[in-house]
Amino acid sequence: MPDFADAAARVVAVDDVAAAAATARQGRLTKPPGALGRLESTGIRLAAVARRCPPPVPEPATVAVFAGDHGVLAEGVSPWPQEVTAQMVANFAAGGAAVNVLAGHVGARVVVVDVGVAADLAPAPGVVVHKVRRGTANLAQEPAMSVAEASQALDVGAALASELVEEGSRCLLTGDMGIGNTTPSAALIAALTGRSPEAVTGRGTGIDELTWADKVAVVAKAVARVAGRPPLEVLAEVGGLEIAALAGYVVGGAAAGVPVLLDGVIANAAALVAAALVPDCAGYLFAGHRSTEPGSAAALEHLGLEPLLDLDMRLGEGSGACLALPVLQASAKVLAEMATFESAGVSERPDDA
Amino acid sequence: MPDFADAAARVVAVDDVAAAAATARQGRLTKPPGALGRLESTGIRLAAVARRCPPPVPEPATVAVFAGDHGVLAEGVSPWPQEVTAQMVANFAAGGAAVNVLAGHVGARVVVVDVGVAADLAPAPGVVVHKVRRGTANLAQEPAMSVAEASQALDVGAALASELVEEGSRCLLTGDMGIGNTTPSAALIAALTGRSPEAVTGRGTGIDELTWADKVAVVAKAVARVAGRPPLEVLAEVGGLEIAALAGYVVGGAAAGVPVLLDGVIANAAALVAAALVPDCAGYLFAGHRSTEPGSAAALEHLGLEPLLDLDMRLGEGSGACLALPVLQASAKVLAEMATFESAGVSERPDDA
Repeated sequence: MPDFADAAARVVAVDDVAAAAATARQGRLTKPPGALGRLESTGIRLAAVARRCPPPVPEPATVAVFAGDHGVLAEGVSPWPQEVTAQMVANFAAGGAAVNVLAGHVGARVVVVDVGVAADLAPAPGVVVHKVRRGTANLAQEPAMSVAEASQALDVGAALASELVEEGSRCLLTGDMGIGNTTPSAALIAALTGRSPEAVTGRGTGIDELTWADKVAVVAKAVARVAGRPPLEVLAEVGGLEIAALAGYVVGGAAAGVPVLLDGVIANAAALVAAALVPDCAGYLFAGHRSTEPGSAAALEHLGLEPLLDLDMRLGEGSGACLALPVLQASAKVLAEMATFESAGVSERPDDA
Repeated sequence: MPDFADAAARVVAVDDVAAAAATARQGRLTKPPGALGRLESTGIRLAAVARRCPPPVPEPATVAVFAGDHGVLAEGVSPWPQEVTAQMVANFAAGGAAVNVLAGHVGARVVVVDVGVAADLAPAPGVVVHKVRRGTANLAQEPAMSVAEASQALDVGAALASELVEEGSRCLLTGDMGIGNTTPSAALIAALTGRSPEAVTGRGTGIDELTWADKVAVVAKAVARVAGRPPLEVLAEVGGLEIAALAGYVVGGAAAGVPVLLDGVIANAAALVAAALVPDCAGYLFAGHRSTEPGSAAALEHLGLEPLLDLDMRLGEGSGACLALPVLQASAKVLAEMATFESAGVSERPDDA
């Protein structure tokens, strides 16, 4: 399997010529110009990724759920116990979690990757173990992981993306599980966008005002430590194992030339890391939804991405990416299947004619 | 087939007990409470419609596209010629329009109903002719139609909804085609919400500033004429044939106990009429998307509906309703298929336990 460096070297910028052809085609389809709004711009971006117009429908799709634990939980940043990460991995394997229901609904396959769960997991179908370490260290006190560990997690993600596309996947969705992972995500987003810790730190799975203030202080301390350092070091210092693997997965998807559909704030943080390491991968990214976590909107704005959905969701797991997949696929079908004014014999508006 | 009055008499308020059961169930599923955002509230509303929890998945679905022409086109409110309505009906029949592509994508059937196209249409598969009259009169100068004609169009819609549910449809989507129909929609929305004509009149398929000012003047004149009059008279005076049929269809769907998934501003105007005539039908309505037409947001706010999608779309035809269908269906599957904390052996957060 190619490692992260191989994948990074293979990423090429998306194709502006195919995008221009798609833009022109949108204007000839039987609808007022622009009337399909962001479905049109999304289809144009898919053409740029596929380097042809109309672009193929991005299917079959796979959602990879990377799981890891977080030493920063010792700071009291989440009300949920760490054991829930492993329990939820078992729930994914049993098919009972939101991501299973939503992936099944949209015809996507679920793959779960243990890249850093603190417990030893019982073997289960659909769960791959590539454990880099048993949870990160407490990023409030020390580096979350070493640069070598971050690189290893990047390799795990890049290799999986390559493998999935080789097996036939034509759209990669991001998923994550890790109790406490909104804290490293907020730290990465603050560090990589320049926003303040207050502006990008949210309530995660549900915390009160005092706990939120503590969480902001943890994020602020972590961010101060990484000021001016290169993105790989930022990732190692204040990131998470599943976030690093997601960043590798994003780059691996871009290297393989397929669209990568992002879930919420954890994926947004990983995408910022990926784009900082390999700027040309940004053209392959599609934002499934905007999470209610404030860091999500900040990261998407920095990446120049508009979310397909905005349903006040904040679950993670890949739930928002799955729910957005039919919209992404529809944007390709519009370009491929709609009649043109000419082919359908429909009059164009006089001032366009 | 039952007529509109029969349907109206059969509408009962949605079931608060089933909604409460669904609310309680959302709290036991393996996710932080509320983390699926509006997917959760949507599932709760589906339970209220179905009068049971979990609610059945709303499928199979049918989108009915009601087509009609508008005498107000004589005022220059649209750059498109009237013949496009009939041409687009032919495009629907041939399967080349956006609604065909999007309905096919989400597994919905398309039925087209000529309730008021100004031309005689060639017979085509999937196109039903229930023409009430050949286009409305110019609502800027006189009543768009008589009360008897409005009632007849309401009957067409109610009867079709009943027929579709009898044939097996479990979700009704609204669609529309009618060059010029954003003008009667704006007039209905202004009249029924009390908003100003300026606030609810939009650019439709694309008009310049001067044409927009003329369109606002037309809407204002029409609205002034119907002040204080009962909703059926308002519909006849300033509405459209496809809008009246859609209002009947909405009430027919509610009478049959199925969710009705609304498309954009035309459907929103029809839903306002339906809710004014039969208030209990409001509980059966789901807003597929928010159109960029300003009347859409105004109508949805008045109806207390939050849109599932917000993709800057303004095409009509049922395109936004089709695109939202997978989200609506997903909300039911979450309630039916997700594991509970107890069944999955996942720890609840301590302060919830």
